[in-house]
Amino acid sequence: MTASSLSPAAALARDLLRCPSVTPAEGGALTLLQERLEAAGFTVSRVVFSEPGTPDIDNLFATIGSGAPHFVFAGHTDVVPAGDSAAWRHDPFAGTVDDGILYGRGAVDMKGGIAAFAAAAIDFLASQGGDLPGTVSLLITGDEEGPAINGTVKLLDWARAEGHRFDACIVGEPTNPNALGDAIKVGRRGSLSGTVTVTGVQGHVAYPHLAKNPVPDLMALVGALTGLSLDAGNERFQPSNLEITSVDVGNTAFNVIPRQAEARFNIRFNDQWTLDSLRARIEAALEGVPGLSCDWSLTFKSDASESFLTHDAALIDTLADAVEAETGKRPELSTGGGTSDARFIKNHCPVVEFGLVGQTMHQVDERVPLDELDRLAAIYRRFLETYFPAG
Amino acid sequence: MTASSLSPAAALARDLLRCPSVTPAEGGALTLLQERLEAAGFTVSRVVFSEPGTPDIDNLFATIGSGAPHFVFAGHTDVVPAGDSAAWRHDPFAGTVDDGILYGRGAVDMKGGIAAFAAAAIDFLASQGGDLPGTVSLLITGDEEGPAINGTVKLLDWARAEGHRFDACIVGEPTNPNALGDAIKVGRRGSLSGTVTVTGVQGHVAYPHLAKNPVPDLMALVGALTGLSLDAGNERFQPSNLEITSVDVGNTAFNVIPRQAEARFNIRFNDQWTLDSLRARIEAALEGVPGLSCDWSLTFKSDASESFLTHDAALIDTLADAVEAETGKRPELSTGGGTSDARFIKNHCPVVEFGLVGQTMHQVDERVPLDELDRLAAIYRRFLETYFPAG
Repeated sequence: MTASSLSPAAALARDLLRCPSVTPAEGGALTLLQERLEAAGFTVSRVVFSEPGTPDIDNLFATIGSGAPHFVFAGHTDVVPAGDSAAWRHDPFAGTVDDGILYGRGAVDMKGGIAAFAAAAIDFLASQGGDLPGTVSLLITGDEEGPAINGTVKLLDWARAEGHRFDACIVGEPTNPNALGDAIKVGRRGSLSGTVTVTGVQGHVAYPHLAKNPVPDLMALVGALTGLSLDAGNERFQPSNLEITSVDVGNTAFNVIPRQAEARFNIRFNDQWTLDSLRARIEAALEGVPGLSCDWSLTFKSDASESFLTHDAALIDTLADAVEAETGKRPELSTGGGTSDARFIKNHCPVVEFGLVGQTMHQVDERVPLDELDRLAAIYRRFLETYFPAG
Repeated sequence: MTASSLSPAAALARDLLRCPSVTPAEGGALTLLQERLEAAGFTVSRVVFSEPGTPDIDNLFATIGSGAPHFVFAGHTDVVPAGDSAAWRHDPFAGTVDDGILYGRGAVDMKGGIAAFAAAAIDFLASQGGDLPGTVSLLITGDEEGPAINGTVKLLDWARAEGHRFDACIVGEPTNPNALGDAIKVGRRGSLSGTVTVTGVQGHVAYPHLAKNPVPDLMALVGALTGLSLDAGNERFQPSNLEITSVDVGNTAFNVIPRQAEARFNIRFNDQWTLDSLRARIEAALEGVPGLSCDWSLTFKSDASESFLTHDAALIDTLADAVEAETGKRPELSTGGGTSDARFIKNHCPVVEFGLVGQTMHQVDERVPLDELDRLAAIYRRFLETYFPAG
């Protein structure tokens, strides 16, 4: 297959994969995107955000048209590291096409999704003859895989300050577990992390009466956490789930009773809880543990997020209809999986997520079949056609 | 108080404390002891043992007399580090006497005990006019506070190879919890350490069905260990006791389900168990835990030791009578506390332990009242008088 035979979506995806944009590096990816979008008539802004202690991050905002409805596509050009490049079938930053499949770090997460949308939007705008009944924007960050401090949150605030009011958003993250068309994300669970610390009295194992071992108390507290039955889930959400992510003492001396022991946990929770109600439930569960002999404390991490569910039926149906028309499948409306920048966007407008198949994301040989790129572009184009009905 | 007014036991203890013999350094302590014992007629051997990967260790064996009964006093001149010397009231290696109290690292553990016995033996031998009906030896190592590889075990074997057959031994460790005369150690608990390792499948907390968290299984296994009721103790021994000394995962990422979790434990056990029966009990307890979903393994540390109890009533009574005569108290016959070199000596002859008060051992301002040194010397001398009746 020669380069000239690639579709616009595939060619742009390949070119983006050749930009080594591992967070926080821009790697040329935003500049490439800027050139292509400006060539199609978009007004493109590059916005760099800084914060003491974090790397400066380059971001991009592209817009065309004016007035409502204002549709925005959100995504990120930064990628996670390739890991052991030698383990890859093809150089992770070469954008190699092999037997109809495009290889590279970011192929599905999510340079492929960005390329598919950009190609779809450019094609759709060309078909409108410059007469778009509304606004189409792209909000692209370089800080989604990193600390997410100088990225989408600040870019959303910047856009609002610039006068932009969004009516609907699609995030192009890879939402499909197995095949294109499996699932649209219409919300996300919340996330709450915490640490339980038990403090006893250090001593020698031969004299336990002179010490207070914190481990049995920690076991009891952890038991109260793992034994929590939070909820059974509902039509839109899985049951909330708690995982103990670490238990640590760090004592290498077998003849010493340690002073302190701690356990860390994370909860992914559905819309039957708020952060406040969940924190209160955890505190009550731990306070209800009987027979403890040591002091203990509970701290919650500050990076917690609430769950959310998008209720804009028109947005969801328009996207689901486009997916079904191109794939023959009615996509599941899912709220599973991890968090994404949608948790920030939902504070600005209704947001759904749909992109490629996630199976190879963050893995060696991340890749996407070229025909899936083209089918995703077709879905996005069909969505835009319905969202902006011919005047 | 001038140096000349110190008793022989106190003066020798002070001189020994001035030798900086932190394991593995000899620090001049054995050489000093050799000079004093040779001056009193002892034949003294210095024996250095080596082992790849461990420091060479200097040891001392001193003997006088011939034939049975052969009594041996065992001890160590090496000491644990002083820690923060500035926190001490007096330089830990100056052997300062202040208000009738001798300060220094090793004052009670156990240069004081060695000095008391050496002074008692020298005085007793002088009283015998060179006509000792048997043999008195001192078996002194420089590797009790260290790995104990090039010390007592090898020195015992060396002495056996040299033709020495011991009939009774007193170890001069500080056996008294609060006051001189509290307790003679007539045995020790055994010690068994182990590690339980649970191996699951790492994954993202948002996708627990794709992972297997090892922590809940580890909690269940630890619960089986802490819930073990091993025994109720008996007339001579405390109940056996298990402590969980560490629980570790080492995962700092709150969004990751870890792959592996481990717990470490130590058991101090009495003579109702052997190492074999105890290992079998632990294995059975863990194998009986229902509902585990991960793989797990159990390993025991190689430095385990059996419990022992000395049954030589004559040895015990002779020592207890001497203690009671000097202190007015009948000492408790104890098997509590940690291990000592007695666990090696009991393979060669009946062994009991009696020395100073242990309260300040291994601590800042380790110290001994001079009158306690003299009373301990009097106890040892009285023991020797009874053990070697005038012919």
